[in-house]
Amino acid sequence: MQLTDLSTPALVLDRQRLAKNCAAMRDRMIAQGVALRPHLKTAKSLEVAREATGGPQGPWGGAITVSTLAEARYFAAAGWRDITYAVGLAPGKLAEAAALQESGLCLTLLTDNLACVAAAAEEAAARAARFRFLIEVDCGGRRGGVDPESDTLIAIGQELQAAPGLDLVGVLTHAGHSYHCRGAEAIRQVAEQERAGAVRAAERLRQAGLPCETVSAGSTPTAVHSASMSGLTEMRPGVYMFFDLDQMGIGACALSDLALSVVATVIGHNPRAGRILIDAGGLALSKDTSAAEFLDRVGYGLVCDLETLAPLADLYVAEVHQEHGLIAAATGAPPYDLLPFGRKLRILPNHACMTAAAYPGYWITDGGLAVHDRWERVNGWN
Amino acid sequence: MQLTDLSTPALVLDRQRLAKNCAAMRDRMIAQGVALRPHLKTAKSLEVAREATGGPQGPWGGAITVSTLAEARYFAAAGWRDITYAVGLAPGKLAEAAALQESGLCLTLLTDNLACVAAAAEEAAARAARFRFLIEVDCGGRRGGVDPESDTLIAIGQELQAAPGLDLVGVLTHAGHSYHCRGAEAIRQVAEQERAGAVRAAERLRQAGLPCETVSAGSTPTAVHSASMSGLTEMRPGVYMFFDLDQMGIGACALSDLALSVVATVIGHNPRAGRILIDAGGLALSKDTSAAEFLDRVGYGLVCDLETLAPLADLYVAEVHQEHGLIAAATGAPPYDLLPFGRKLRILPNHACMTAAAYPGYWITDGGLAVHDRWERVNGWN
Repeated sequence: MQLTDLSTPALVLDRQRLAKNCAAMRDRMIAQGVALRPHLKTAKSLEVAREATGGPQGPWGGAITVSTLAEARYFAAAGWRDITYAVGLAPGKLAEAAALQESGLCLTLLTDNLACVAAAAEEAAARAARFRFLIEVDCGGRRGGVDPESDTLIAIGQELQAAPGLDLVGVLTHAGHSYHCRGAEAIRQVAEQERAGAVRAAERLRQAGLPCETVSAGSTPTAVHSASMSGLTEMRPGVYMFFDLDQMGIGACALSDLALSVVATVIGHNPRAGRILIDAGGLALSKDTSAAEFLDRVGYGLVCDLETLAPLADLYVAEVHQEHGLIAAATGAPPYDLLPFGRKLRILPNHACMTAAAYPGYWITDGGLAVHDRWERVNGWN
Repeated sequence: MQLTDLSTPALVLDRQRLAKNCAAMRDRMIAQGVALRPHLKTAKSLEVAREATGGPQGPWGGAITVSTLAEARYFAAAGWRDITYAVGLAPGKLAEAAALQESGLCLTLLTDNLACVAAAAEEAAARAARFRFLIEVDCGGRRGGVDPESDTLIAIGQELQAAPGLDLVGVLTHAGHSYHCRGAEAIRQVAEQERAGAVRAAERLRQAGLPCETVSAGSTPTAVHSASMSGLTEMRPGVYMFFDLDQMGIGACALSDLALSVVATVIGHNPRAGRILIDAGGLALSKDTSAAEFLDRVGYGLVCDLETLAPLADLYVAEVHQEHGLIAAATGAPPYDLLPFGRKLRILPNHACMTAAAYPGYWITDGGLAVHDRWERVNGWN
């Protein structure tokens, strides 16, 4: 099969770029002396997880991070045994967490509050189960997490340690604000905040006589540009496997690193509006426009050649409706002759995590027109 | 089962509101004397289609509109026999269209260009098939379609009529720009543009000696507020079945009409940022922010009571990450006591079409806490 044979829209993953991105991240972690626990929230795929880690019995110990219990179930069923669910736990998910553990999974949960600890202690007692917890620390992203200097951090640690069915494993932080930095130096400063916040929280727990084996940090930008990971035990980047225009805009990767794209077909021209219409719209590309923070005229994605994935002139997807994308040129009218009715092309998306979620799987290429394989994804929550 | 039992995030559809919205639209079409060919792009569900039309053998003739061939396949397999695929056709989809027709489906396709007609004529000859086409007309939305006054309209009509395997069925237009009007009077003006554009195109085809049985128009706002549908044969609204904050913002519905919501759970508080965290983020709610065009402080959705679906104070989802939503109050700090850890709530989404697409189906309520049923959706393209 060839890319030209795909019914559009279709999601395509370049396996060579994926392999290069995964190898580069492993090399960085080896150089920094920390473990890599890649976040599978972007890829949601067994084959991608194998490429990132060497597999559940691979040299990285099969340690992975997930964003849903559906991902945990999917990877556990394929043999992964060391999974961190890195979203603050809702109490309604304890029963499923316990069920997953009964299948042999070492599952680590996340919390930033005492109410969660109390609910987990109760559930552990009721089920004669044990739950492992990391305490979420806010290193400046102001999403979830406790202040590393707070009394709450110690109080949560003490409660986790005191409850018979709970284990305090360590601390976890995520510098989400690194996505809003431009360039390596700005990212490096956030990476140091991230490192310092996690390490400080670990120090304070240890000073209080509490265990803190794991000191977990990581976003793709900070994993790429961090100057020091001293005191950390692991990093959890995720989108680096594919990268996207957003990561390119902040300076975490180059255009030639982008591994994910959407194949679309030209379905019409509207010269009165200066637009070329394609059959990939808001559902196929997502309505995420995060790359616009630092890049001009990227819209909902850059228009590229079907085979080479090289950008076509200055064309981008300027507008989306549910099933329509409207291509514009950055200046002037788009080259209608270059993109006649029926021509297939590829769109490099803004935000890989959001775009990939619309598809049940990936068509796999090695950089040319040939389609070599089909890899499934685990979408949704249940 | 109760809403409190659902694993979150979960998609919930209020069957009573759905029924009321569907009945009101049927009544409007009866009053205007045009057929209703509801667009299933939002709902993608057999049960919703039955509610909207009375079913494939119902009083409305089982006529529906779809946005993907996956929807066409799904509804055809359940007995629907009169389906319009209302997205400009890509030539790669002709083979599947032919296969669907062989199963007994009367499928009507859409085009706005001669290259598509040539490709369809060739495919029809090669397969000894027939393809039915509507010509897409641009009534001011500047997406797809030809100018109703253009020579191209007549040329496409003549080619469709001349090709042995093709049938010219009529014209179709969609006033997408009605989504950017505020209030009934502004929408009424766009509705008249939509009507006049479609009717003018039909007149010109007939004057050229060409058939034009179908004169199809419709968006939800114009179907709700149109003063006259004279000359039209059918309307194709879709989102009216559920409505959403975007439709409320432009004045197409009231808050009490909104039938779709997402159940989420409070997973933490971040008083330093003035935020309450829930487990419904950018994937669960979508990143669509269209309601912000006319409504202040709706963000990614309004926060409502789990049982009554009444808005909770002035709370809205101010920020989303992949699996996190951050609730803020329009003024001041959010009421942490009202939404403690573990509390479930419901979010009224910005744009029902985008939000629903993240879920494999609906949990059905009749306005209370009880969950009565589960209805599946047909997502994706293949």
